[in-house]
Amino acid sequence: MLKVAIVGATGYTGEELIRLLVDHPKVKITSLTAKIDKPQNISEIFSRLSGRIDLQCADLESVDDVAAISQVVFLALPHRVSMKFAPQFLQLGRKVIDLSADYRLKDTELYEKWYKVVHSSPDLVQKAVYGLPELYRAEIKKADLVANPGCYPTGIILGSAPLLKNGFVDVSDIIIDAKTGLSGAGRKAALDLHFSEITGNLKAYKINQHQHMPEISQELTNLAGESVKIVFVPHLVPLNRGILSTIYFKKSRKMGLEEALDLYKDFYKDEPFVRVKPSGQFPQIKEVFETNFCDIGIWTEQQSDTLIVISAIDNLGKGAAGQAVQNMNIMYNFKETAGLL
Amino acid sequence: MLKVAIVGATGYTGEELIRLLVDHPKVKITSLTAKIDKPQNISEIFSRLSGRIDLQCADLESVDDVAAISQVVFLALPHRVSMKFAPQFLQLGRKVIDLSADYRLKDTELYEKWYKVVHSSPDLVQKAVYGLPELYRAEIKKADLVANPGCYPTGIILGSAPLLKNGFVDVSDIIIDAKTGLSGAGRKAALDLHFSEITGNLKAYKINQHQHMPEISQELTNLAGESVKIVFVPHLVPLNRGILSTIYFKKSRKMGLEEALDLYKDFYKDEPFVRVKPSGQFPQIKEVFETNFCDIGIWTEQQSDTLIVISAIDNLGKGAAGQAVQNMNIMYNFKETAGLL
Amino acid sequence: MLKVAIVGATGYTGEELIRLLVDHPKVKITSLTAKIDKPQNISEIFSRLSGRIDLQCADLESVDDVAAISQVVFLALPHRVSMKFAPQFLQLGRKVIDLSADYRLKDTELYEKWYKVVHSSPDLVQKAVYGLPELYRAEIKKADLVANPGCYPTGIILGSAPLLKNGFVDVSDIIIDAKTGLSGAGRKAALDLHFSEITGNLKAYKINQHQHMPEISQELTNLAGESVKIVFVPHLVPLNRGILSTIYFKKSRKMGLEEALDLYKDFYKDEPFVRVKPSGQFPQIKEVFETNFCDIGIWTEQQSDTLIVISAIDNLGKGAAGQAVQNMNIMYNFKETAGLL
Amino acid sequence: MLKVAIVGATGYTGEELIRLLVDHPKVKITSLTAKIDKPQNISEIFSRLSGRIDLQCADLESVDDVAAISQVVFLALPHRVSMKFAPQFLQLGRKVIDLSADYRLKDTELYEKWYKVVHSSPDLVQKAVYGLPELYRAEIKKADLVANPGCYPTGIILGSAPLLKNGFVDVSDIIIDAKTGLSGAGRKAALDLHFSEITGNLKAYKINQHQHMPEISQELTNLAGESVKIVFVPHLVPLNRGILSTIYFKKSRKMGLEEALDLYKDFYKDEPFVRVKPSGQFPQIKEVFETNFCDIGIWTEQQSDTLIVISAIDNLGKGAAGQAVQNMNIMYNFKETAGLL
Repeated sequence: MLKVAIVGATGYTGEELIRLLVDHPKVKITSLTAKIDKPQNISEIFSRLSGRIDLQCADLESVDDVAAISQVVFLALPHRVSMKFAPQFLQLGRKVIDLSADYRLKDTELYEKWYKVVHSSPDLVQKAVYGLPELYRAEIKKADLVANPGCYPTGIILGSAPLLKNGFVDVSDIIIDAKTGLSGAGRKAALDLHFSEITGNLKAYKINQHQHMPEISQELTNLAGESVKIVFVPHLVPLNRGILSTIYFKKSRKMGLEEALDLYKDFYKDEPFVRVKPSGQFPQIKEVFETNFCDIGIWTEQQSDTLIVISAIDNLGKGAAGQAVQNMNIMYNFKETAGLL
Repeated sequence: MLKVAIVGATGYTGEELIRLLVDHPKVKITSLTAKIDKPQNISEIFSRLSGRIDLQCADLESVDDVAAISQVVFLALPHRVSMKFAPQFLQLGRKVIDLSADYRLKDTELYEKWYKVVHSSPDLVQKAVYGLPELYRAEIKKADLVANPGCYPTGIILGSAPLLKNGFVDVSDIIIDAKTGLSGAGRKAALDLHFSEITGNLKAYKINQHQHMPEISQELTNLAGESVKIVFVPHLVPLNRGILSTIYFKKSRKMGLEEALDLYKDFYKDEPFVRVKPSGQFPQIKEVFETNFCDIGIWTEQQSDTLIVISAIDNLGKGAAGQAVQNMNIMYNFKETAGLL
Repeated sequence: MLKVAIVGATGYTGEELIRLLVDHPKVKITSLTAKIDKPQNISEIFSRLSGRIDLQCADLESVDDVAAISQVVFLALPHRVSMKFAPQFLQLGRKVIDLSADYRLKDTELYEKWYKVVHSSPDLVQKAVYGLPELYRAEIKKADLVANPGCYPTGIILGSAPLLKNGFVDVSDIIIDAKTGLSGAGRKAALDLHFSEITGNLKAYKINQHQHMPEISQELTNLAGESVKIVFVPHLVPLNRGILSTIYFKKSRKMGLEEALDLYKDFYKDEPFVRVKPSGQFPQIKEVFETNFCDIGIWTEQQSDTLIVISAIDNLGKGAAGQAVQNMNIMYNFKETAGLL
Repeated sequence: MLKVAIVGATGYTGEELIRLLVDHPKVKITSLTAKIDKPQNISEIFSRLSGRIDLQCADLESVDDVAAISQVVFLALPHRVSMKFAPQFLQLGRKVIDLSADYRLKDTELYEKWYKVVHSSPDLVQKAVYGLPELYRAEIKKADLVANPGCYPTGIILGSAPLLKNGFVDVSDIIIDAKTGLSGAGRKAALDLHFSEITGNLKAYKINQHQHMPEISQELTNLAGESVKIVFVPHLVPLNRGILSTIYFKKSRKMGLEEALDLYKDFYKDEPFVRVKPSGQFPQIKEVFETNFCDIGIWTEQQSDTLIVISAIDNLGKGAAGQAVQNMNIMYNFKETAGLL
């Protein structure tokens, strides 16, 4: 059994990691740490796990102690905090799957601009592999440090890849209207996350200013082979889990719906976690809820300039913990769907 | 007191009309009818109204009887049904405010294509006034038949008018990503409206096929003075009331945010029900909940090609019953905000 | 116009007070204060009010300044804070309607035990009138200081009064199973109020330990003329506004359903804000939403020992701000329903 | 692999059965039938299952055909429909787990009174085993026909068993205040299940008239060894899944909280699916969501007459499909938690 540590176990992502790994046939969770006043059994913190796991969660006092009892470390930490710990675990020979943004942006200047902090291990950024298996599976297999993608980027990149890779759309005019549930905001106290502020409400936020923008741009640019230009408007929707991204492309060549669907079905034909919806059908959040699937639906018409892609993921599943487990499966040659299907 | 009849009183729009008119200082509701098995007090059907109104709601058996006790008639009926009754009430000299789609589209061929029925009173279509006060106040003042706008069109047209009227954007490339609550689907039994199908869910539907498309196109074309081309993707969001429309324009001239905001503030400076948000702020559904307001927020930058307008309305308020009352206020020279503020 | 000050304007109760008073035909809001970093227009804090009120909300620096421009003061403050200000406003000859718990409990020892603080103006406690109009209308009329009832107590006392007043039930065995929405928890940042913690969830809390217990006991004891014994289990339900209280009584005499309903209808026959449901019907939260009504439904059978009363209120309406306005109407000889119906 | 048929696969219970059985290590689903117009792949009906199961769901035309390819049959049918099919499958030598109410009530007169239909196989009623493993494990092991308990009864019986079995409470005075989510109402079109009727709402229904009453009474009476008298008030709460039952007992002997907790912990010490909460903690719906757990919390004090038990289950999990799978595991000597933990 692979010995696994989770650092940052008390957030929503940490909780989901535990929920998935507890049932994983090849894994044993050996260490849970978090910013916490005093050690507490994780099944008291997340009572849904009671009866399924019996392990103390304590403050991370010694990286050595955690490394001593684990082979792979999941960092479910806030941005800016991960880069304090990742180098230490790597130094000690442990593999690291980092769920923060700290190693996703290859351009550290861009990182420093968007995250407003100096990067403390820029060399590691270049060694890190962007953990989107559908695009980087081979690299993930050999990686010591995986930068697990952000939630918005995951759904948007998967929804865009076949078109951009093939040069079928105008890369200078991509509009992304995304809608997320509230768990994406993290497990923290804040007035604007109060149930009474959210239920019955709906709003856009951080228009073209969301910190996931450079990550989306980086990966879409990689796919297109030229610099892309995106508009990105995230919205907050009164639901717990899920992201629906409606992406508006301008076609650079004639393409009907069936051709577009075939393109996507072919591109993802070997992917266990990407499901392309049949013609005339579109993804729904409840269909990816608590799964590692990314569902994709397409609308276009032969004579239409526009091609619309809608992708749906669970932001804590394929958008975070599920994908991290998928990456672990790849890194350790487990069945890629182990613990996820 | 103006004597008012509501035909179709038992839908969500009918309920909201009653709620507003019960408190209206110049109005007395004298007749409530609906498709109903046996007469029932409206305060039993909608118990929230109990203690505020005491009136039977019965099947509409005789247009003459209803006309005999009313001066103005609100038709809160399904599409295709209104056009059976509007001509009769008009014939009897009653003014009609029709909340269905039957008299909104000036091109009856278009109506017949989208609503899949032959129009039975095409002549009246031409006499009907499109009841959006911000654009047609003078005509509404003199109208006998007002075609109250659809919910999606209201928010989208108000969000687009200043730009299109001034020719500041590319009319061939308008993308509308709209999100609606469930009351817009009407008060009816249907599996896909089941609470368990909607809570925690989110999806697009009727992409570029929603019956409000030709209505939006007609009015945007009128504003622009040339044929517009829109992409329209409605989404269902787990909330009861409200529509948020995120509209993506391509600018046809340089324009910074302040200039855009000034344009909107100026365009709507005398409008009691349109609120333009300050720079950097965007509308929220809860801020227009149960009101007749349309809130508008704008994002652009000097160097950006894109200008984003976000508008929010309550689909039963400004998107239906509230606007109908506003129209009535204009038709009868009441204070325009009477019963609404 | 009566000049009104609201101290503590930025909570949910403050917001609801403003929403009601803005439309009140006899009132002008002249002062809004709150714990706030720098003065801000209230319509920016609560954008739903934008276009309806234009008034700065500032930190309360001088009681004299507030008193100078107001005749009546609503204290929408947390428990323990109100008693700092109420004496000062009264001293200056202003009438005070206090929405906190500070002047509700006649037994200050009990107050000090439950609220864990020494009462700083015990003499005023005795002068304060408990602001439940259905029981204390005459006293409210003459009061200088009204202690506006708690949300749970309002629905429970109104649901119990006719039975207890007439001695028809066992006062030693009253079980209250109450369910509240989240706005009752107040407008504040807290992890357990996070949307993701509440949606899809349901739980009991503070069993027999809720601070409203002594208030309920005090008033039920007053009604019964002897000491009552209650069990009180509040539950948190994923909705914004509303309290449903299901109260289980043991009958001390034979009584059928019709007799019970007649008792209630008679008891409340002159009350504009209490609606007794017909036989076989029970209150629903949506029917009292954003109203000042208390709806009551009853179940019993001739041969049953048990009589069940279900009452529904909006916790911010009849349970707080609505009732406070009703009290003001009574104190100033306005029509009791002014601004509320 | 055990070959499993599900009759009535298109309801919420059917969907949950499939979701659980698809992952079950010892089972293969071989037949899915339902009242359906034309055969359709189940992963189209429930797209969440897409990629996990590939099986047609068709109308049940021949019991023989279904029996030919299955060893055990789950009947996820409405009450009154199951009894048409159960005898046929049993006749053919198949084991049957019936999730309807048809074989739960040993007194068929009672069944006929509450379900308003003549029972067509009263003999089988006597052979059926009530499928609550915590009480009837030995009988279930040998059963051919298991009557899977109702959702309300499951949580209530488990919450009551230790007290009643030991005679520690007054059996003539048991008050049950239960709160359920909407999936319990079934997957069907109905106006009162419309999202807009439920969100923001809360109400009691079928007070002392719910069809689960005689089932609860039967089992509590069995436990107590004498006839019990219950009051049962179910409430509808705006959530998808989950039942929270707050049960009010009168103690017949002195008992403190620790003693009560010990009683429960001891009673359920070998049960994998009953979790007794520590002192001062109470169950939450989200902690049992999509699980087969029943969580139980207790409140009492030494000097209090009252003892309160709160139990929480997922109505589709332990309250239906989860428990049915647990019963199957017992019947076929699988690990009892297989496919459930």
